[in-house]
Order: sequence, then structure tokens, then C-alpha cells
Amino acid sequence: MECYCQLEGVADLLSRKYAMQLVSIIGAHESLRFGEIEDHLPGASSSTISKRLAEFEDAGLVSRTQHDEIPPRVEYALTADGDEVRRRLEPLLEWATATE
Amino acid sequence: MECYCQLEGVADLLSRKYAMQLVSIIGAHESLRFGEIEDHLPGASSSTISKRLAEFEDAGLVSRTQHDEIPPRVEYALTADGDEVRRRLEPLLEWATATE
Repeated sequence: MECYCQLEGVADLLSRKYAMQLVSIIGAHESLRFGEIEDHLPGASSSTISKRLAEFEDAGLVSRTQHDEIPPRVEYALTADGDEVRRRLEPLLEWATATE
Repeated sequence: MECYCQLEGVADLLSRKYAMQLVSIIGAHESLRFGEIEDHLPGASSSTISKRLAEFEDAGLVSRTQHDEIPPRVEYALTADGDEVRRRLEPLLEWATATE
């Protein structure tokens, strides 16, 4: 088995605070607004959520769509790559949560 | 898809610093001594590694075996549960590392 000693790229992002939860939460919905994401993560600060979302957007895992309404509405969703991460993350979280 | 908003138990442990790397490193070997683990994680402090190992031991993912030699030799290895985590973690790290 290969040894993943240095986590790079997406793996590094996923090891950050609330990252795995965020992928799971966004993936459980078609798309979500920032406030809705916050509602799912009462323990996380807004700035942490913002930081994670920006990192995921840079990495191409999350898309951010601004709808030109008044007030503007911004929606976050998983990209195809983000969904690939979610699918690979799921067996882990499923097992790890059941074993509590 | 279920939403893993609150990570509990093992999932929570895995979201901590260097946790995923540790599972990967220990799983890549039959067993490892503390110093050998440190060699694989030059960026991590000894106290962080100790903390993670103690958490994993409490959760039954890592076994700690002390061999009564002089000086005593302590070896860390994945338990069956720890290996289950490693097997579920692998597809994620594999994809996430390749996408860098």
C-alpha cells in the first residue's frame, strides 16, 4: 500500500476543519445558500466556513453561482469533482459514524 | 444521501490534524515505533503525534505494544478496525492526491 504521508491538493484541503462535513452537507442538497450552510454547522464560525468554501472553489470542488436579484442570491453546489470526493468520502463517514 | 453534519466518533478523530496521514502511515507498515512515525511526518510536532495516537488507541484503531527489552520497545500498529478505516480512506486519498 502506498503511504500518504504528505497530503497534497484536495487531500490536504479535506483534512482542514469542517472540510469533510462541508462536502457532505453541500452534496446532500442540489444547492445551498451561505446561511443554510451555516444552519447545518452551528459549531463553525462564518469565517471558517467562508475560508473552506473559497478553498473548495479554487480547487474546483464547489461552484458559486450569483443570481442577479435584489438582494443578490448566491448558491453553492458541488461540481462533478466535488461529487467524486463526496462519493469516496461516504463509505468512510458511514462506517466511522456507525461505529460511535 | 445522508448528511454528515456533525462528525462523531471516528469521523471526528479523522478530521483532526495529521489523523488521516497517521492512519495511512501506520497502515503502510506491519508496525512502527514512535520515532519511525515521526520520521514520516517531519511537519508534525511530537505532542500532536502522541495526542493522535492516544485518541486512536482509545478508539480501538491503533494498538500499542510494549516489548519488555532494555530499553523498552513500543510498537504501534493498526487494529482490524483501524485497517477498515484505512481501506475506506484509501480511495479518497488516492483520488485526492492524483488530482493535485
